Amino acid sequence: MKPLILASTFALAFTALPALSQTKPTPAQKAVPSALVQELVLANHILASEGVLDAYGHVSVRDPSNANHYWLAKHMAAGVVTPADIIEYDLDSKPVSGDPSAGYTERFIHGEIYRARPDVMAVVHCHSPDLVPFSVSSAPLRPVYHMAGFLETPVPIFEIRSAAGLTDMLIRNPELGKALAQTLGQKPAALMRGHGAVVVAPSLHVVAGRAYYMNMNAKLQLQAIQLGGSVTYLDPEEAKKTGAQDGFERAWDLWKHKVGAK
Amino acid sequence: MKPLILASTFALAFTALPALSQTKPTPAQKAVPSALVQELVLANHILASEGVLDAYGHVSVRDPSNANHYWLAKHMAAGVVTPADIIEYDLDSKPVSGDPSAGYTERFIHGEIYRARPDVMAVVHCHSPDLVPFSVSSAPLRPVYHMAGFLETPVPIFEIRSAAGLTDMLIRNPELGKALAQTLGQKPAALMRGHGAVVVAPSLHVVAGRAYYMNMNAKLQLQAIQLGGSVTYLDPEEAKKTGAQDGFERAWDLWKHKVGAK
Amino acid sequence: MKPLILASTFALAFTALPALSQTKPTPAQKAVPSALVQELVLANHILASEGVLDAYGHVSVRDPSNANHYWLAKHMAAGVVTPADIIEYDLDSKPVSGDPSAGYTERFIHGEIYRARPDVMAVVHCHSPDLVPFSVSSAPLRPVYHMAGFLETPVPIFEIRSAAGLTDMLIRNPELGKALAQTLGQKPAALMRGHGAVVVAPSLHVVAGRAYYMNMNAKLQLQAIQLGGSVTYLDPEEAKKTGAQDGFERAWDLWKHKVGAK
Amino acid sequence: MKPLILASTFALAFTALPALSQTKPTPAQKAVPSALVQELVLANHILASEGVLDAYGHVSVRDPSNANHYWLAKHMAAGVVTPADIIEYDLDSKPVSGDPSAGYTERFIHGEIYRARPDVMAVVHCHSPDLVPFSVSSAPLRPVYHMAGFLETPVPIFEIRSAAGLTDMLIRNPELGKALAQTLGQKPAALMRGHGAVVVAPSLHVVAGRAYYMNMNAKLQLQAIQLGGSVTYLDPEEAKKTGAQDGFERAWDLWKHKVGAK
Repeated sequence: MKPLILASTFALAFTALPALSQTKPTPAQKAVPSALVQELVLANHILASEGVLDAYGHVSVRDPSNANHYWLAKHMAAGVVTPADIIEYDLDSKPVSGDPSAGYTERFIHGEIYRARPDVMAVVHCHSPDLVPFSVSSAPLRPVYHMAGFLETPVPIFEIRSAAGLTDMLIRNPELGKALAQTLGQKPAALMRGHGAVVVAPSLHVVAGRAYYMNMNAKLQLQAIQLGGSVTYLDPEEAKKTGAQDGFERAWDLWKHKVGAK
Repeated sequence: MKPLILASTFALAFTALPALSQTKPTPAQKAVPSALVQELVLANHILASEGVLDAYGHVSVRDPSNANHYWLAKHMAAGVVTPADIIEYDLDSKPVSGDPSAGYTERFIHGEIYRARPDVMAVVHCHSPDLVPFSVSSAPLRPVYHMAGFLETPVPIFEIRSAAGLTDMLIRNPELGKALAQTLGQKPAALMRGHGAVVVAPSLHVVAGRAYYMNMNAKLQLQAIQLGGSVTYLDPEEAKKTGAQDGFERAWDLWKHKVGAK
Repeated sequence: MKPLILASTFALAFTALPALSQTKPTPAQKAVPSALVQELVLANHILASEGVLDAYGHVSVRDPSNANHYWLAKHMAAGVVTPADIIEYDLDSKPVSGDPSAGYTERFIHGEIYRARPDVMAVVHCHSPDLVPFSVSSAPLRPVYHMAGFLETPVPIFEIRSAAGLTDMLIRNPELGKALAQTLGQKPAALMRGHGAVVVAPSLHVVAGRAYYMNMNAKLQLQAIQLGGSVTYLDPEEAKKTGAQDGFERAWDLWKHKVGAK
Repeated sequence: MKPLILASTFALAFTALPALSQTKPTPAQKAVPSALVQELVLANHILASEGVLDAYGHVSVRDPSNANHYWLAKHMAAGVVTPADIIEYDLDSKPVSGDPSAGYTERFIHGEIYRARPDVMAVVHCHSPDLVPFSVSSAPLRPVYHMAGFLETPVPIFEIRSAAGLTDMLIRNPELGKALAQTLGQKPAALMRGHGAVVVAPSLHVVAGRAYYMNMNAKLQLQAIQLGGSVTYLDPEEAKKTGAQDGFERAWDLWKHKVGAK
């Protein structure tokens, strides 16, 4: 069931994309930081290639030159996003340009987290197969190895029932986005019960690394539990120290190579 | 053991297929809704590519212009089906045209469900590795996350012993097809003990999405159980609300891209 | 850790192989049933592609025109075998032609089973990841679904300690081959403690299908056990009836397509 | 989450690499045993392709003509290493040539093991997903099948807290390298709590085989435990006898073929 997405497929998608300039530019589009859009497209492809995102879930980046705007693909699977599919939003998650009907239903996750967390420059929302089980279990997700030391425990779990009763589970409006941002608090990640997770970071590279290794940690922790013995988790002090690492640049370089990007 | 089917392989199969018009047309063939056949071939390739079908299992679609006919590949693996391999059947699962000896033994699954369920336009029968364990366990399959909210619990399990005693487990005749359809009732899916599952929907896109996410839910539920704590399942009201979603179009688009279809 | 072997790799290996006629033919080689050798090479590639064989393990076929001879690759990984690598052996597992030093250490598995079982025409010896756990556990391997109905329970486990004490676990000589054949008896498969399994059948196609689905059944049975409830296995009568199926032709056709063979 | 690295990607990386002679040679570089560097690059690619190394972890080889020097890639993912990225180190893990800032933080693992173990000619440090769980569990890693007989039990676990208290878990200096080497002792492998493992051998081929099958054994042992029955492990005598095998040449040949190396 694991998506198999070939590097060549992405390479094609990546190189064949229509230049943004070919569509009639609005003033906002003229200001598009094209290098940032390219990075965001690459982050979409990497997170799909590495199994963090499947047909659903998304990644955004805050505009470094305008803290009140962020960039996010339109309503589509991450693996097939092109630069032309990137929309600019304000913090109310209203499109600054482009087709307003084409946005992700849950874009408020991004807008409200950027509003609440000035330090956050990139956000991932995912349904990764290894994370969902922890979102519905009383067993808490905890870092078992140094690659996931950035996780601050306990990893909070957003219970949408507390915010809005029995819903369709989606973050459909700013109020739910605010409630999720409140559960997240100042942490790097939160699980969403029966849904997935949200991960934040000061950059696209770090948010990709955190999402990948949060997922991997969940997989390893489950296996450690299955061994039936006692499990030694990272000490909070160890977690804190390992969390201050190199920004996952080595992983980003590999992942970029794998999706065939230049 | 997970099938690795390359996009390029499918692309080849898909583009190299002989046009239906090249075989001597019978009146029935003349009426072939070729776009629908193309979609059915694509559904075969997608379900193979995504691990729902392996060498066995099948997907069918009801003829939208004749509710008493449906379309299904001949006796072969879904991953290598071409339009020339699609047979038209009536609700007795007798071929309207083509070689009657080449049909799937279990085509009665399709015919009897279409007869019993006028709302159903597409049917998948599969042996997905994540579903079979739930078919033989006393642990019930239940939706753990919003992507599988369409599942109505308890997911019924068809026990062929109750219908016909000790058999070779196959739905070899209309009577067994009827018994299975009765177990399915008005639900979107049923497990088949020691065999697999059947999934139904109002379209090919939705049946593919349901089969994929029913399988994924089984995987996630097993992992949640393995964590050893208590598990919070979707509330029936949550399941009902999440079940009314967008028809898995975003997933279909990605899967179509992955198998290389135009 | 699952081997990823690309279809194109095999296609290359398969088409680039030197013709047998290019090496100086011995009388035995002249009699080579080349179609059978081609099928054996294909079986090697399929079993590697489908995860039954990794760098170790092997598959053989008995000569249909001489029941005292069988064919087996030389000491190499199944995924890269070519026709030029196939050696003809007698039932003492002595090469009839070719370099005697290049044989698999454990070729006696094949010779002694062919000697003891006139009905057997093909043999697989494998270390499949899903089977090894059952070889060392007190939990017996049993068919959970119809695709593995051919398994006769209890699946015997060969304990080499009973035959030869504390060894290096390998079937290094005819005596150990005979002991293994005795454990196998008239059954289609046996597990080998701390080692793997042996699977037999009346043809290459069936032995490939049995090896694949024995492996898959092990995976499914483990998952069913992990669900924590009670498990319903196939009734022996059901197993017997499902075991009399079509010879896995549909699976063989798919697998052949996947490794790129014509 | 398992890295999918295509053979063709590696083949490209492997053939497109700049010749070492194109950079201005230092005396040390002139002495580069280029065949050994090629083998080391290949080992990097194989271990990435087979899932032992992801973006992190590394493999080194001791210089056969100078026991006080070893070779190791610069700070980068194993899957994309080229010969130009290989650095020569002395046993203090100081670069003999090249950019000293570009080394792996944990190169002291290699230097201190080579110092302590004259018999060791190759070292792997990895975070393989199947091994980390054993590093944090009270359940000991033990050989369940003959392919992992080389493991001497109990496999020691390096607890960095005993050596240095609460750290960032990394082997950042010679002292920590020495402590790890001391835990390893005369054994072929050691787990590192909350981190991964270190594997040593008399050659690159054997260290690759040991790392791969240590990982596979962990996977199989977990599955055997999950079956819930009693587990029969290799007897120490069996382990000792199986450990004296052919050096994993058959596996190396297959893996080399898979990464497309000539």
